[in-house]
Amino acid sequence: MRTSKERAPIYEMLEAHAAKRPISFHVPGHKGRTDWGVPGADQRYGPLMSLDVTELTDTDDLHHPQGPIAEAQHLAADCFGADETQFLVGGSTAGNLAMILGTAAPGELLITQRNVHRSVIHALMLAGVQAVLLPPAIDISTGLALIPEENLIEQTLARYPEAKGVILTSPNYYGLSTDLRPIVERCHAAGIPVLVDEAHGPHYGMHPLFPQSALQAGADVVVQSAHKMLNAMTMGAMLHMQGKRVVREAVLQALRMVQSSSPSFPLLASLDLARRRIHTEGPQAFEAALSAARRIRQLVSGTRFRILHAEAREISDGVRYDPLKVVCYDEWGQWDGFAVRDLLAARGCHAEMADARFVVLALGIGSTYEDGEAAGQALAAISKELGAARSAVSGEHAPLSGGLLLKAPQVPEPVRFDRQVKNVISVPLEEAVGRTAGEWIVPYPPGIPELFPGERVTVAAIERLKQWNRKGAQIQGAGDPTLSRIRVWD
Amino acid sequence: MRTSKERAPIYEMLEAHAAKRPISFHVPGHKGRTDWGVPGADQRYGPLMSLDVTELTDTDDLHHPQGPIAEAQHLAADCFGADETQFLVGGSTAGNLAMILGTAAPGELLITQRNVHRSVIHALMLAGVQAVLLPPAIDISTGLALIPEENLIEQTLARYPEAKGVILTSPNYYGLSTDLRPIVERCHAAGIPVLVDEAHGPHYGMHPLFPQSALQAGADVVVQSAHKMLNAMTMGAMLHMQGKRVVREAVLQALRMVQSSSPSFPLLASLDLARRRIHTEGPQAFEAALSAARRIRQLVSGTRFRILHAEAREISDGVRYDPLKVVCYDEWGQWDGFAVRDLLAARGCHAEMADARFVVLALGIGSTYEDGEAAGQALAAISKELGAARSAVSGEHAPLSGGLLLKAPQVPEPVRFDRQVKNVISVPLEEAVGRTAGEWIVPYPPGIPELFPGERVTVAAIERLKQWNRKGAQIQGAGDPTLSRIRVWD
Repeated sequence: MRTSKERAPIYEMLEAHAAKRPISFHVPGHKGRTDWGVPGADQRYGPLMSLDVTELTDTDDLHHPQGPIAEAQHLAADCFGADETQFLVGGSTAGNLAMILGTAAPGELLITQRNVHRSVIHALMLAGVQAVLLPPAIDISTGLALIPEENLIEQTLARYPEAKGVILTSPNYYGLSTDLRPIVERCHAAGIPVLVDEAHGPHYGMHPLFPQSALQAGADVVVQSAHKMLNAMTMGAMLHMQGKRVVREAVLQALRMVQSSSPSFPLLASLDLARRRIHTEGPQAFEAALSAARRIRQLVSGTRFRILHAEAREISDGVRYDPLKVVCYDEWGQWDGFAVRDLLAARGCHAEMADARFVVLALGIGSTYEDGEAAGQALAAISKELGAARSAVSGEHAPLSGGLLLKAPQVPEPVRFDRQVKNVISVPLEEAVGRTAGEWIVPYPPGIPELFPGERVTVAAIERLKQWNRKGAQIQGAGDPTLSRIRVWD
Repeated sequence: MRTSKERAPIYEMLEAHAAKRPISFHVPGHKGRTDWGVPGADQRYGPLMSLDVTELTDTDDLHHPQGPIAEAQHLAADCFGADETQFLVGGSTAGNLAMILGTAAPGELLITQRNVHRSVIHALMLAGVQAVLLPPAIDISTGLALIPEENLIEQTLARYPEAKGVILTSPNYYGLSTDLRPIVERCHAAGIPVLVDEAHGPHYGMHPLFPQSALQAGADVVVQSAHKMLNAMTMGAMLHMQGKRVVREAVLQALRMVQSSSPSFPLLASLDLARRRIHTEGPQAFEAALSAARRIRQLVSGTRFRILHAEAREISDGVRYDPLKVVCYDEWGQWDGFAVRDLLAARGCHAEMADARFVVLALGIGSTYEDGEAAGQALAAISKELGAARSAVSGEHAPLSGGLLLKAPQVPEPVRFDRQVKNVISVPLEEAVGRTAGEWIVPYPPGIPELFPGERVTVAAIERLKQWNRKGAQIQGAGDPTLSRIRVWD
């Protein structure tokens, strides 16, 4: 007899429905058939089409679940340690929108960090709220941005006790994070909920080698991209809630507003199946991916490439890493991340992302030892080809920190967000002071926006932009990447 | 040599990517593999998983398309007759949200009809706008709600010249519509754009037997559920724009805000393939579905069931019908739509929806003659079983009109929408006058909301609710379906 965690209620319901060979006089219009006149496509989609159904008597309604969807969500809450879990068909984007729309009314104030995913900024715009955007802490050894310092959050809570929530992003895109618990405890002591965009960490807390999850750290609302590291289909994500600091009905109402009224059942079933896999297998489910990570490290050892977390000294105290994000760089600093990414792609290994220093290989629950072998062999071959352009100077490689560190950052003024498209004009950098920024200006690395649309341009901001320019940072988002002019509201 | 309309750029790009057998070190975490430990599921999803990729150098970015997605969208604009087409992965919901968010700033005013899809109301709430909610015209022979009368829209335009747009829903859920062109012309003469939720009409204008499309009638923004009647996967939809009355960048920005930053490529490719089918085949693509509709009509002829549009006299002047929506009812009025729906389901034929009178069989591009045979035979058999409970009284069947017709409706006051969850209390119906409604109250048929949350409760509204109650209407949405009490804001 199967235990309940071995069930996949949504998937099983869809199979049971299809087994009845129902004749469909309801949407969708394909009626379970593929007939596109493209034989390859018909074969690709064919087996799945009869599961692509709609809300029927024997299916369920994502927005008011009472049957298999409710059951599947209960199982997911059990698996991830939440009080309540909502399946998302609009990706973590839908979750980030809902958690923010559900927490603050227009004009109310939230606290977050500058280095958030674009969907968080979109949520602030859509919500029409004010937000205090804190500078993140920078990991000193890598120059990568983390969450803000605990004492900065403490100062911010003291200055803005009316804040409706603190929004954090953890882990970052490179798989780095710090312990959320002390910050969660400070926020809760101030009566303020913590909302975490954990898009890159749906596997956290599921294996002894992974950092703890945001739910384990006590966060109130957590959004995870189940498609990023687990094996749900793309756009499959989950929103978890625990405790009573957030009005759950408000988050649920926001989800009903931002998500499709005809959600995809194959997508929902893939969330159910992804949960089932880790629920039944436990840590074992990640052993193949971990073996791939280990194999890359083995094969890269002795080459010109290094892996960020392969040696403990390269990660600062208190910074935790995701063993499934293999962050590579050229020890000699001659080849940037973009170049290494392209050399890997030429060998059939497609990386998640690259910047001026790093290339990030994202493993996932579907990764195999053979994948690790392929990437490791490719890196070893690339190293050999590039050769000893200069002799290795062990321990003397360029410092990784590329960030402009803020000493004792101050609590900034809140920015008022709205969703309207503005008329913008381009002005010389110096003349922008006192005006409102009309574009995002994001130096890479570390990818922390220096200006958001809607933010007042200060003398200090202009000074920082000039410093970035002198350092030769790559400026993303700006209409003029040389930053001699910037766009401001007209 | 293939013409460009025979191409399916997104699908072809995905196949080309998969053919390289790339090794994935990027999201999604399934890496193109299915390994859920559920063999049936692995087989169902298997062939499609290697197309479930993310934004890569050789794929494209839905939010800033420059490659195959841009090309596919251009082909779709050509096929549907738009200046610009956006593929939607969040269903028509995403399109309705974006067209409304992109048209009106918070506090600005829109004009719409009371009988809209919930996603339109959600958009008004999210947008924080005011809306004048017009009573729809009622088709006298069926009691079903259409769009508002032209002269009512004219009066409304005169009274609210500051309106930012007129939002119409056409066709309705039963496939009924009236000519949009006169209304579009009036709105354009007033300098006001027309936004149409054409979720149920993605096939309109594609066959001589189908009514013209909203784009053909001159609408500025049109949202269509390609999954409802064409053969895209569920959640696949399109937003079309033409002309310059709407600021397109504002609609696009809203789409970037409400849709996933990791859109599903299999879903996008299914939109591409659905467009290709009708683009290359033309009207021929719908012949099988039309043959199903004809076959149902043949088999139902001589039974106790009637089909709404099978006889011209049953449709009022100027009302057009969708031949792919087969709207059935018991001529003798003994069996309601719900009962007939259940009797059909017991014979394996699953209808789209039912109400107190009608059952709606929705055909689609995937429907076959055999489907029509099955539904027709089922209806004939049901008719035989139910027998001649009384003799047919030709031409004397109960009048279909169940609506409470408004004589010379007035232009109502605007309702201010917001997205906050309110505290509500339940009060006796009489005591609600002058307070703000805290729930939706929707009598069926015809499914037109009598009260929206946020709407001021008037004496007239209370009188109408009492009339509905006396008529024995089924009241949806209300906490107390007998309407002795209703919920209002505390």
